Amino acid sequence: MKLGQIGEFGLIDRLKERVFRPDKKVVTGIGDDAAAFRVSSRELLLVTTDVLVERVHFDRRIHSFWQIGWRAMVANVSDIAAMGGLPRYALVSICLPETMSVEAVEQLYEGMQIAADEYHLQIIGGDTVSSLRDMAVSIVLCGQVEEKSLVTRGGAQAGDLICVTGELGGSQAGLAMLQLMSSKRKGDVLPLPVEKWSAVRDRHLQPRARLREARLLAKGGVVNAMIDVSDGLAGEVGHIAEESSVGAEIKEAQIPIGSETRRIARHLGVPVLDLALCGGEDFELVFTIPAADAHRTAEQIIGETGTAVSIIGKVLPAEDGVVLVSPRGKRRPMLTEGYRHF
Amino acid sequence: MKLGQIGEFGLIDRLKERVFRPDKKVVTGIGDDAAAFRVSSRELLLVTTDVLVERVHFDRRIHSFWQIGWRAMVANVSDIAAMGGLPRYALVSICLPETMSVEAVEQLYEGMQIAADEYHLQIIGGDTVSSLRDMAVSIVLCGQVEEKSLVTRGGAQAGDLICVTGELGGSQAGLAMLQLMSSKRKGDVLPLPVEKWSAVRDRHLQPRARLREARLLAKGGVVNAMIDVSDGLAGEVGHIAEESSVGAEIKEAQIPIGSETRRIARHLGVPVLDLALCGGEDFELVFTIPAADAHRTAEQIIGETGTAVSIIGKVLPAEDGVVLVSPRGKRRPMLTEGYRHF
Repeated sequence: MKLGQIGEFGLIDRLKERVFRPDKKVVTGIGDDAAAFRVSSRELLLVTTDVLVERVHFDRRIHSFWQIGWRAMVANVSDIAAMGGLPRYALVSICLPETMSVEAVEQLYEGMQIAADEYHLQIIGGDTVSSLRDMAVSIVLCGQVEEKSLVTRGGAQAGDLICVTGELGGSQAGLAMLQLMSSKRKGDVLPLPVEKWSAVRDRHLQPRARLREARLLAKGGVVNAMIDVSDGLAGEVGHIAEESSVGAEIKEAQIPIGSETRRIARHLGVPVLDLALCGGEDFELVFTIPAADAHRTAEQIIGETGTAVSIIGKVLPAEDGVVLVSPRGKRRPMLTEGYRHF
Repeated sequence: MKLGQIGEFGLIDRLKERVFRPDKKVVTGIGDDAAAFRVSSRELLLVTTDVLVERVHFDRRIHSFWQIGWRAMVANVSDIAAMGGLPRYALVSICLPETMSVEAVEQLYEGMQIAADEYHLQIIGGDTVSSLRDMAVSIVLCGQVEEKSLVTRGGAQAGDLICVTGELGGSQAGLAMLQLMSSKRKGDVLPLPVEKWSAVRDRHLQPRARLREARLLAKGGVVNAMIDVSDGLAGEVGHIAEESSVGAEIKEAQIPIGSETRRIARHLGVPVLDLALCGGEDFELVFTIPAADAHRTAEQIIGETGTAVSIIGKVLPAEDGVVLVSPRGKRRPMLTEGYRHF
């Protein structure tokens, strides 16, 4: 059987049964944004790792080396944030073809270093190996979280409201426009002037992690489950549903989508909802919270950080499944596959 | 400037100056087998990562998937051992082409899992991403060490004796024979029957980490510096010399080399010393120890583990450089580049 037939999540399910058998010190293992284990009486260590592969996750025609470095670091910070933790120490491994210039590698590291400064973490080590063709960047990020502040994907309760920070689909919209630009032939006219989509371009090229928002949510103590949007809203809600053994309904009309993203969807002729549901790398937070606390928490987040929080749906019992509700109230199953690697 | 011109270690030196600025909680950062930082009053967390890339670090014609998994895990265990620590939790990231079979991936994980059981650690998470052609395996291994038992590359003192566990060059000798076998055409005669080199074949295909020996050494409290042999003895002694700001002399005649390795070197027409000095992946330990403690420590290690310890040289003041001493007493500089990735 080829990997293409069972997919990434099918593979992970098979491996979970056979390989992963965590002990009592392991608080969360495979199947969350980061692994968490106990290192002292009150603190947990968080460890996450992401591998970015050239031509799969980035494209040198679109992303500068600086941006590749920045994006790789932010993706990991976002994973630690989604667990309620603070990022602390990073190890960076890079596979490089020997034809690459030293200056390019330094720009890559500079992007990572500026992101590290921004999120108050340190790059303390790593590994550099040669590759024959494609470049790959792997970051291991260690973080810390007080045991009582840990938030996993697995704590959602039926009746919780489902919330999301900021806006969705922007990164995917920006990427689509950048791809259009890079494949544009000389003389082609680009009908949408760049000032009409510069916000989503920047959002794609230099995303931000919702670290402050996540810490406020985690320390507030009322969030039951949280995840960051790296593979699209549908997939992330699916992960929460699976890990929490619950169902969920998401109201299409409540999904926060910016005006630039809507304009680009029209321009490209794609349903704008697809960008939000399936477009990855927005790095917003999706979280569930008891209904009684939702409005107060949303106000606190916007008051302290300026970041909007939208209530987009509700956690249901598992037997109700994961559904999308149209503006007219029509219900349909939400495809929760996320970005498929195979 | 291309990477090929400055090499891996030149690149790391440049990056050290520009990127890595560790704080007080970081006990060792880049430039050791693992990074170490404080997580409680007496304990340090160790984190190491290694990326193995197809066609650079392994070859599917020579290594089974099971062996690729085993070797990747053992290489990381060896790094934690060399710091004096115990491996605890691993995260595994794999880049896979979608044409790979599910069974192959499961064998790969099984190799890692059996190694994990052997060294009493747990695989708790990771990431699976697609690659377009080559496979890559990246393992992050977290370990723990009491602060007083930590051993780095940086503590060697002039006058220390330099010791090594087991025998060197065997893994490289085994690999050379395996490569010869895999390129053999039908009808070619392999002049050396496999029973004459099966020990080094196994040594290459299923290496072991010197975890027990390293822990005994670290807890004994007399070892000043330690490193594992992943890139050849010359390179590892060079790392200790650089990080400790010392020189060293290695007596050629004292380097422990097994009879199979000597036979293969003759058979292949290569100097046997090259296999020991430049051949990687033996995963033996090189350590320095005050002269007064060396013999007692060597006896303790062999008594408790059955593993021989050879005294192969002496730590010198930095101005004496790093030299090899021939059986007739002739001194020449030792090339300490190790395996060059670029």
